[in-house]
Amino acid sequence: MADGSPASSKHHVFSSWPSFAGVPTRSLDDLEDAGVVIVGAPFDWGTTNRAGARFAPKAIREADYLGTDGWRPHVPTGINALDVLSVVDVGDLPLIPGYVEESIDVIADSVESIARAGAVPITLGGDHTVTFPDATGVARVHGFGNVALIHFDAHADTGETHFGHLYGHGTPMRRLIESGAVPGNRFVQIGLRGYWPGPEVFAWMKEQGMRSYTMSEISERGLNTVVDEAVVHAADGADAVFLSIDIDVVDPGMAPGTGTPEPGGLTSRQLLDTVRRLAKDLNVVGADIVEVSPPYDGPGQITAYLANRIVLEILNGMAERKIAGNS
Amino acid sequence: MADGSPASSKHHVFSSWPSFAGVPTRSLDDLEDAGVVIVGAPFDWGTTNRAGARFAPKAIREADYLGTDGWRPHVPTGINALDVLSVVDVGDLPLIPGYVEESIDVIADSVESIARAGAVPITLGGDHTVTFPDATGVARVHGFGNVALIHFDAHADTGETHFGHLYGHGTPMRRLIESGAVPGNRFVQIGLRGYWPGPEVFAWMKEQGMRSYTMSEISERGLNTVVDEAVVHAADGADAVFLSIDIDVVDPGMAPGTGTPEPGGLTSRQLLDTVRRLAKDLNVVGADIVEVSPPYDGPGQITAYLANRIVLEILNGMAERKIAGNS
Amino acid sequence: MADGSPASSKHHVFSSWPSFAGVPTRSLDDLEDAGVVIVGAPFDWGTTNRAGARFAPKAIREADYLGTDGWRPHVPTGINALDVLSVVDVGDLPLIPGYVEESIDVIADSVESIARAGAVPITLGGDHTVTFPDATGVARVHGFGNVALIHFDAHADTGETHFGHLYGHGTPMRRLIESGAVPGNRFVQIGLRGYWPGPEVFAWMKEQGMRSYTMSEISERGLNTVVDEAVVHAADGADAVFLSIDIDVVDPGMAPGTGTPEPGGLTSRQLLDTVRRLAKDLNVVGADIVEVSPPYDGPGQITAYLANRIVLEILNGMAERKIAGNS
Amino acid sequence: MADGSPASSKHHVFSSWPSFAGVPTRSLDDLEDAGVVIVGAPFDWGTTNRAGARFAPKAIREADYLGTDGWRPHVPTGINALDVLSVVDVGDLPLIPGYVEESIDVIADSVESIARAGAVPITLGGDHTVTFPDATGVARVHGFGNVALIHFDAHADTGETHFGHLYGHGTPMRRLIESGAVPGNRFVQIGLRGYWPGPEVFAWMKEQGMRSYTMSEISERGLNTVVDEAVVHAADGADAVFLSIDIDVVDPGMAPGTGTPEPGGLTSRQLLDTVRRLAKDLNVVGADIVEVSPPYDGPGQITAYLANRIVLEILNGMAERKIAGNS
Amino acid sequence: MADGSPASSKHHVFSSWPSFAGVPTRSLDDLEDAGVVIVGAPFDWGTTNRAGARFAPKAIREADYLGTDGWRPHVPTGINALDVLSVVDVGDLPLIPGYVEESIDVIADSVESIARAGAVPITLGGDHTVTFPDATGVARVHGFGNVALIHFDAHADTGETHFGHLYGHGTPMRRLIESGAVPGNRFVQIGLRGYWPGPEVFAWMKEQGMRSYTMSEISERGLNTVVDEAVVHAADGADAVFLSIDIDVVDPGMAPGTGTPEPGGLTSRQLLDTVRRLAKDLNVVGADIVEVSPPYDGPGQITAYLANRIVLEILNGMAERKIAGNS
Amino acid sequence: MADGSPASSKHHVFSSWPSFAGVPTRSLDDLEDAGVVIVGAPFDWGTTNRAGARFAPKAIREADYLGTDGWRPHVPTGINALDVLSVVDVGDLPLIPGYVEESIDVIADSVESIARAGAVPITLGGDHTVTFPDATGVARVHGFGNVALIHFDAHADTGETHFGHLYGHGTPMRRLIESGAVPGNRFVQIGLRGYWPGPEVFAWMKEQGMRSYTMSEISERGLNTVVDEAVVHAADGADAVFLSIDIDVVDPGMAPGTGTPEPGGLTSRQLLDTVRRLAKDLNVVGADIVEVSPPYDGPGQITAYLANRIVLEILNGMAERKIAGNS
Repeated sequence: MADGSPASSKHHVFSSWPSFAGVPTRSLDDLEDAGVVIVGAPFDWGTTNRAGARFAPKAIREADYLGTDGWRPHVPTGINALDVLSVVDVGDLPLIPGYVEESIDVIADSVESIARAGAVPITLGGDHTVTFPDATGVARVHGFGNVALIHFDAHADTGETHFGHLYGHGTPMRRLIESGAVPGNRFVQIGLRGYWPGPEVFAWMKEQGMRSYTMSEISERGLNTVVDEAVVHAADGADAVFLSIDIDVVDPGMAPGTGTPEPGGLTSRQLLDTVRRLAKDLNVVGADIVEVSPPYDGPGQITAYLANRIVLEILNGMAERKIAGNS
Repeated sequence: MADGSPASSKHHVFSSWPSFAGVPTRSLDDLEDAGVVIVGAPFDWGTTNRAGARFAPKAIREADYLGTDGWRPHVPTGINALDVLSVVDVGDLPLIPGYVEESIDVIADSVESIARAGAVPITLGGDHTVTFPDATGVARVHGFGNVALIHFDAHADTGETHFGHLYGHGTPMRRLIESGAVPGNRFVQIGLRGYWPGPEVFAWMKEQGMRSYTMSEISERGLNTVVDEAVVHAADGADAVFLSIDIDVVDPGMAPGTGTPEPGGLTSRQLLDTVRRLAKDLNVVGADIVEVSPPYDGPGQITAYLANRIVLEILNGMAERKIAGNS
Repeated sequence: MADGSPASSKHHVFSSWPSFAGVPTRSLDDLEDAGVVIVGAPFDWGTTNRAGARFAPKAIREADYLGTDGWRPHVPTGINALDVLSVVDVGDLPLIPGYVEESIDVIADSVESIARAGAVPITLGGDHTVTFPDATGVARVHGFGNVALIHFDAHADTGETHFGHLYGHGTPMRRLIESGAVPGNRFVQIGLRGYWPGPEVFAWMKEQGMRSYTMSEISERGLNTVVDEAVVHAADGADAVFLSIDIDVVDPGMAPGTGTPEPGGLTSRQLLDTVRRLAKDLNVVGADIVEVSPPYDGPGQITAYLANRIVLEILNGMAERKIAGNS
Repeated sequence: MADGSPASSKHHVFSSWPSFAGVPTRSLDDLEDAGVVIVGAPFDWGTTNRAGARFAPKAIREADYLGTDGWRPHVPTGINALDVLSVVDVGDLPLIPGYVEESIDVIADSVESIARAGAVPITLGGDHTVTFPDATGVARVHGFGNVALIHFDAHADTGETHFGHLYGHGTPMRRLIESGAVPGNRFVQIGLRGYWPGPEVFAWMKEQGMRSYTMSEISERGLNTVVDEAVVHAADGADAVFLSIDIDVVDPGMAPGTGTPEPGGLTSRQLLDTVRRLAKDLNVVGADIVEVSPPYDGPGQITAYLANRIVLEILNGMAERKIAGNS
Repeated sequence: MADGSPASSKHHVFSSWPSFAGVPTRSLDDLEDAGVVIVGAPFDWGTTNRAGARFAPKAIREADYLGTDGWRPHVPTGINALDVLSVVDVGDLPLIPGYVEESIDVIADSVESIARAGAVPITLGGDHTVTFPDATGVARVHGFGNVALIHFDAHADTGETHFGHLYGHGTPMRRLIESGAVPGNRFVQIGLRGYWPGPEVFAWMKEQGMRSYTMSEISERGLNTVVDEAVVHAADGADAVFLSIDIDVVDPGMAPGTGTPEPGGLTSRQLLDTVRRLAKDLNVVGADIVEVSPPYDGPGQITAYLANRIVLEILNGMAERKIAGNS
Repeated sequence: MADGSPASSKHHVFSSWPSFAGVPTRSLDDLEDAGVVIVGAPFDWGTTNRAGARFAPKAIREADYLGTDGWRPHVPTGINALDVLSVVDVGDLPLIPGYVEESIDVIADSVESIARAGAVPITLGGDHTVTFPDATGVARVHGFGNVALIHFDAHADTGETHFGHLYGHGTPMRRLIESGAVPGNRFVQIGLRGYWPGPEVFAWMKEQGMRSYTMSEISERGLNTVVDEAVVHAADGADAVFLSIDIDVVDPGMAPGTGTPEPGGLTSRQLLDTVRRLAKDLNVVGADIVEVSPPYDGPGQITAYLANRIVLEILNGMAERKIAGNS
C-alpha cells in the first residue's frame, strides 16, 4: 500500500483513529447535511457467553490501513461512497456497563434522533441486544410496521427471555415483533444454523410470518436464489429496510472474534457481495453490525477488518443506488 | 443467545463442563440403555509435530454456549438427537502420558466394552493414533472385516512405522489393515493432499483396495459425487461403518488448532453437511474426531467448536436414520 | 504423520530448519546445476501498516512437519519436484533494516545472479517492495519487456509514491512499468478488491495496458475463466512469466498473518490449484511470495504454512511441465 | 510431577474440573459439616474497562495440574488444608449477565446462607462489584460493624457512583461503609497506586477512618511492617476479618490477566506469604479473590494459577490457625 | 474503577484515544502556554530484531482505563501533574516507514521546535534510534554539551554502525557523543546486562567518560546507591537532564512487549520510583520512552501500560519539583 | 542493538538458527577439543500436564538477537565464555515421540559419550524426565555417587511412579537415587513450593539425606544464605556438580512458558546471578535446563530468552573459574 490519495498528508495509520475511515466527526445534535451517521454502541452486557463486544466500535474503526481522509474509492466501481452519501461519525454512545435497560434507552433515543435528522444510522455494536433499540429508533421515525428487517445471523435471536429478563442478545427480534416496531412478516433471516432455538420457538416464528433461511437451505438452493426471495419479501409493502448483520453469520474461520461462534457459515466474500446488493436494490434506512468481540479475534484482528468492510460495502451499495437515482 | 430451553436452570456456561452438551454422565460399566457413548481419549504422545491434543476432549466438550441440559434441537430438522439416541458421556479414559502401547490397550478395551453394551462409541481424541485401538475395539464386536471405515483427513496415515515403532499418528490405517480389523477394500479416504506419503505407499494402498480421494479430485469432480461413490463403496458388503474424522481435513483457516496443518482443505460447511449425510445413509457403529490441538487454536478456540458440531451433526444424521426406521 | 521416507534419519522437525524442505544449501556464487533457487528477502521496512514480514522467510521454511530431506512427493501426481527441478536454498540475503534502497540493490543483484546462473529464483519475501528488485533482476537476464508478470494480490501496488519516495510496498508495479522491466501490457492482476487505489490510478493502469481482475469479477465469471484469459494474455508475445503472489490475495480467514488484510479473497484451495496450473502451462522464470507477517499469524502459523505450500505447488507445476517436455 | 497421591485413580487433569482442587461438591442447601465453602460468582458486567471475569471461577478452578482428589499438602508445612478445614465447592451462582442488581442479590443471599451454615465462604469472582454483596452476606451473619475488611488492591474502590449508578467494580467499599456492613475504621487497604481516585475521595476515606497503604509507602517502610500494623488494626475491636483480594494488587507482570492493570504492584511471592500469615493470625470469616480476566491472561493462564494458589495459601493459614487451636 | 472525576461525561474508555490521558491536543506550531508536550515517534525501521514499535505511541496512549479528561491525580501525592505542568499532546510525527534519515530529520526538527517553544518534549517512541534526533533537538536549544543524559537500558546502544550505516537502534548514544550534543561524561547508564557490546566498545565508552551501571552492580550495591551517584554525576556541570528510558531495562516478565528482551532487569516498581525521583531532583528538559513493541505484548498489553505510567511518574516528579519551586 | 562484532557478516537473526549462539556445530562422534557441548533433548512425552517442551531446544537457541557468530562477551566481566570454553553444539538427539524408555536410552548414551570425550554436556530439555538419563550419563563417566546435583525447581520430582510407570517428569530424582547415580545426600534442591509431593515423600527424601530449600525458607533466610549452604553441601565429598534447572523455579510472571507453573518463585535476576556463582565456585561437569514450553510462552517468548541466558550465565561462571585456574 502507498499513497496516491488526494489527502496524503493524513497518511499515518499507526495512531489512534478519530472516526470511521476518517469521515468528519459530528455530535448528535449537529447532523445537518449528514446522509449517513456512523455511531458506536459499546455494549456487551447482554452477552450470554463471551463478552468483549464493548471494544468492537473502536476495533472496527481501526481495522483499516488507509489514510484518515474519508476517501475510500471502491475498486470495482470507483465510487467513494463516503463522499456520495455525506457520511459522518458521531463516536460512541455513553452507555452504562452492566445496566441493560438504561443503555437501551440511550441507543433508541440516539438512533431516533439520527433518523429524524434525515440520515441513515449505521450502528457499530455491541452485542445483538442493540438491535432492539436500534431498529426501534428507526421505526419511530419511519413508522412502526413500515420497515422490513433483513437479519444475517447464525441464530434467530427470538428467545422469549434473557434468563427471565426481557433484554439480552438472544431476544431482540422477539421484542421488536412484540412492540410492533417490526412485525414478523417483515423479517427475513439468512444463515441460521446450529442447535438453538428449539422447535416451539421456530413454530412461533412461523406464526409471526418470519421467513428464515438456514445454511442447509442455502447450501442446497444457492445463496443468490435465497437473496432474490429476500429482496422480493422485503420490498413487499415495506417502504424501507433495516439491515442487521451479526458477524457470526460468517464462518468462524473467517470471523473468529465473536461471542457465540457457530461453525459452517457464509464466506466473507458471500456476505460482502450480498450486503452491497441489498443496499443497492432496496431502500436501506438503518443498519447495524454486531457481535464482533476483539479479545477473541487473535493478533490479526481479521473479524474487525471484515466488519469494517461490511459497512463500506453497504455504503457502496447505497451510493450506487443514489447515483442511479433510486434513493 | 438466550433461554427458551426446558432446562433453563442449567443455563450457565461459564463454569466447567460436566459432559458433552450436558448429557448424562455414566461409567464404562454402567451403560444400560445408552445408545451412543461419548468418550475422551486425551492422547497426544503419538504426535510427530505439535502436541496438545491431550486437551482436546475437554476443549471439544466446552466449545459450547448453550445450557448443560442435553438439549440440542437441530435447527434445520428440529430433532434433538441427544434424546432420540440416548447419548451419554463416560468422561476421559485413564491413559498414561508417554506410554503409547499401554494407552492403546486401554482405548481398545474401553471402546470394545461400549460397543459390546450395544452402544455406538464416539471418541473425542487425541491424536490419530487412537483410531487404531478405536476401530479395533468396534471391530472386535461387529466382526473383523465387517466394518467399513470412512476416513476424512489431509493425510493417508498409512505409514509403515513411527520412527521404527508400530504405533503413532501416521500409521493407524496400516495397522488396521494388517490386523484385519478393517481390510483395505473397506477404506474410503476423503480429503488427501500435500506431500506425504510417497508413491510406494500409495501403491501399497492401492494394492490393498483402498479408495482415496484427493482434494484435487474433489475440486474437479465435486464433493457430492465423491460422497455418492463413498456411500456405495462403504455399503458394499459391510454391515456397518466407522467414521474417522481428522480435523485437518478442513482447511487450516477454519481449523487452525491442529498439529499438522495442511492448507487447501474442505470448508467446515462441506464437512458438516457430509458427515450428517453419511450418518443418515449408512449404519454408523463408531466414530472418532481427532487431532484438535487447543494450544494452537487461538483465543476463539474455533477448531474445538467445529469438532463439537461435527459430533452433533453425526448424531443428527444417526437420529434422522433412526426416526426413519433404518437403524 | 510418520516415516516411510528414504531419508528417515532426518525425521525430526522440532529443530531449526536449515533450508526449504531440507533441500541442499548453496551460496550465491555456487549455483552450478541448480534448477530452482530459494532465496529469502527478510525485508519489511517498506510496509505502510503492520511490519513483521522480515521473519517470513524463516517462518515459511519452518511451516513444515516433514523431514528435512528434500523429499516432497506430491500426493495427486507422485512427483517430487524438489528432485526433478534440482531445487537449492541460498538462505537469506544480507539486507539492512531501515535502508530501503540499499536493500533493493542487494535483492536485484542477487536475483539477477541466480537467473544468470540459469536457475529460476523463488523469493520468500518480505513485503511487496521486494518484487521491484526481484522482477528487475529476472528481467535483466531474460530481457526487459520479455517477461509477463502474473500478480495475485488484493491491491494493485501501482501507487505513485511511498510517502513521497519511490520505493515501498505499494509502488513496485508502477516502478517496474516505468523502468520498462515489465511493461504494463505484460501484467495480469488477480484478486483486486477493497478501496485502494482510486480511479485515477486505475485509469493510468488501463492506459498502460494492464489487465486487472477484481474479486467481484471473479465471483461473477468464475476463477477458471479468468485464469484461462490470464494464460492467453501472459503467453501473448512474452517468452516467460514471473509469478508474484501477495498472500493477502487469499481471504484473511485463511491467511490472517499479513500486514494489510483485505476481507473477501480467494480460498487457499483456489490459489493452490491456480498457481500449479499456471506453472504447468507457462514458462515460469521467477516467482515470489510476499507479505506473510508471522507476528500477526496466531499460534497455528497457518499463513506461513499456506505460503510454504504455494511454493511447493508452483514447483510441482514446473516439474509437471518439465516432465512433459515443455520446459 | 507424578503421582504418590492416595487418590491416584483421579490423576487426570486434562478433563473438565468438577470442583476446586477436587473437593466434594455440595449445593447451597446442603452444607452440613462444611467448614469452608468455595463459590463462584461469574460476574463481569460491573467492569468499566475490560470484561472477562465471568470466566474466572472456571479458570481459577482449572489452574491446577494435580489430581482432582482434594489433596493439596502444603510443601512448607505438610498440612492438607482442604481436609483440615472440610472444604467443599458449591459451583457457580446463577447470575444474570447484564443485570447488576439482581445478580448482587443472588450473591448476598447465597453468601449469607453459607455463613449462616457456620462455614467460611470463599468467593471466586467476578469483578470487584461482588465484594459488596459478598461482605454484606457475611456481615448479616457476623454482625454489621463486627467484621474488619483487609483489602488488597491497586485501587481504593471507593468511588461515589458507577456512571451515576450505585453498583459497579469501583464502588463496593463505599457501599459497604454507607450500609454499615463494614464501617470505615474497619478497613485496611494494601497496595494502592496509580491515579485514581482523586484527593477528595481520599479525604472522604480518611474521614471514614480507613487505613490505606500505597505501594510507595510499602516500598519505603517494607511490607512486613505494614502488615504488622494491619493485623493490629484489624484485630482492634473486630471479631473477625474478611479478606478481599483484587488480583491487580500484584504487578501486571505476574498477573497480566486482569481488567484494569496498574504497573508497580506486589510480587506474587509477597502476596502469597502475606495472605497466609493473615489467615493464620486473624479469624477469617470470609474471603474473595476478584478481577481475574482469562481472555487477557495469555496462553499460560498464569493469573488464574496465582489466584488458585492465593486461595490455597489462605486455606493453609486458616488450617495452621485451627491446628494451633485458635479458631 | 468508577467515576468521581470532574469530567465524568468523558468517562468512556472503549473508544479511540485522542491524546495522552485526554490532555488538550495541539499542533507543533501552536504550543503557547504548553509546559510539556507529548509527541509520538512511530518509528521501528531502525530495529535489528523484532519490529512493531511503530504502534507504540498509539498503544501507550491507550494503555489507560480512566477518562479522557486530562485528570490523573497521583495516589501518593494527590497532584494532577497534567494540570500543574500544562501538558499537551501533538499526536504522532509524519515519519516515513523505511527511510531512516528522513525520519530522523523530522524528529530532530520537531523536538527542537517544542524545546524552543519553552516546553519539555516527552517522546513516545519508536525504537531507540529516535533518541539521537530527540536528544539532538533538545541540545540544539539547551546547548550542545549542557544536557546530561540518564539512560535506562539493558543495552549500551553505543555501537559503531548499524550494519555499516550510521543510524539504527544500537548506535544513538555514540552518534550523540560524536556530534557533541551529549558528551560522554554527561552520560549515566543504568541497567546494562547481557552480552553486547564487547570489551572494545566498553573501553571506548570509558574513554568518553560514560558512567555505566550493570544489573550485577545494582544487585550488589543497591539501586538507591546507584541512583544517588547518578544524580550527583548528572548534576555536575550540566544545566539540565534528558531521560531516555528503553523499556527493556525492565525485566521481560514485566515488559514482554519489546524487540530485544534481555532477562534479569529492574522491576517495574523500581523503575517507576526511580524516574519520579530523578524528575523531582533534577531539571528534566526532555525525555523519551522507547522500544515498546505491541505485537509482542500479549493480550494484556502490560508493557504499554507500564510505559504509560513511566510517563506519568516522570510528570509527577516534575510537578513535585515545580510545586517545590525548583523548576 | 547494532554491530561492532568481529563477525558482522553473520549479523542476521531473522533466519533459522544453526546452533546455540552460532557456536560451531559438531556431531557426537567428533568432539575433539570441545570443552562444552550443547545438546537438545526435544522430549515432552513425560509431561503430566501441558506438553510443548519438545520445541524448547529450538526456541532456546533462537531466543537471541545477536549474530550467529559464537561471540557473547559478558557485559559485567567482558569474557566471551563460548571461546574460553570451546563450546560446540551437536543439535538435537533423535528421540522417539511417545516412547519414553527408548528416548531415555538415547539421551543417557549420548550424554555419556560427551562426558567421556572430556567435555561438559549442557542439555536443552525437554521435560524434566530427561534429567534421569542426563545425570546418569554424566555419572557413568565421573562415577556413581561422585557427583552432587544442585536442583532448581518448584517441585521435588521425587515421585514414586509416573502413573504406575518408572519414568516421567515427576520421578527423575527418585530414579537417580535408586540407581545410585546420585545418592540422596548429594542433592540440594532450591525453590520448592506449592502442594506436591506430600509429607510421606518428603519424609523419604529426608531419609535419603536430601537438602531441600523451600521458597518460604528462602524468603525468610535470604537466597544468598541458602546458596552459601548449598555450595558447602555440594562440595562436601563430591568431585563435581551437575546443575539441573527447571525453569519453573522462576516465578510464572517471568517464566510463563512452562508446563506446570507454580506461582511465587525466584526472580529471573536471582536465578541468573545464582547459577553464575555456582558455576564459578564449583566444578560443574554437566547441566540441563528443562520444562520450557514454547506454545505457552506468548508472543514475546520470554521464557525461552531466560533459558538461553541461564545457559550463558552458567558458561560465564565456568569461564571465570577456568580463567582463575580452578577448573
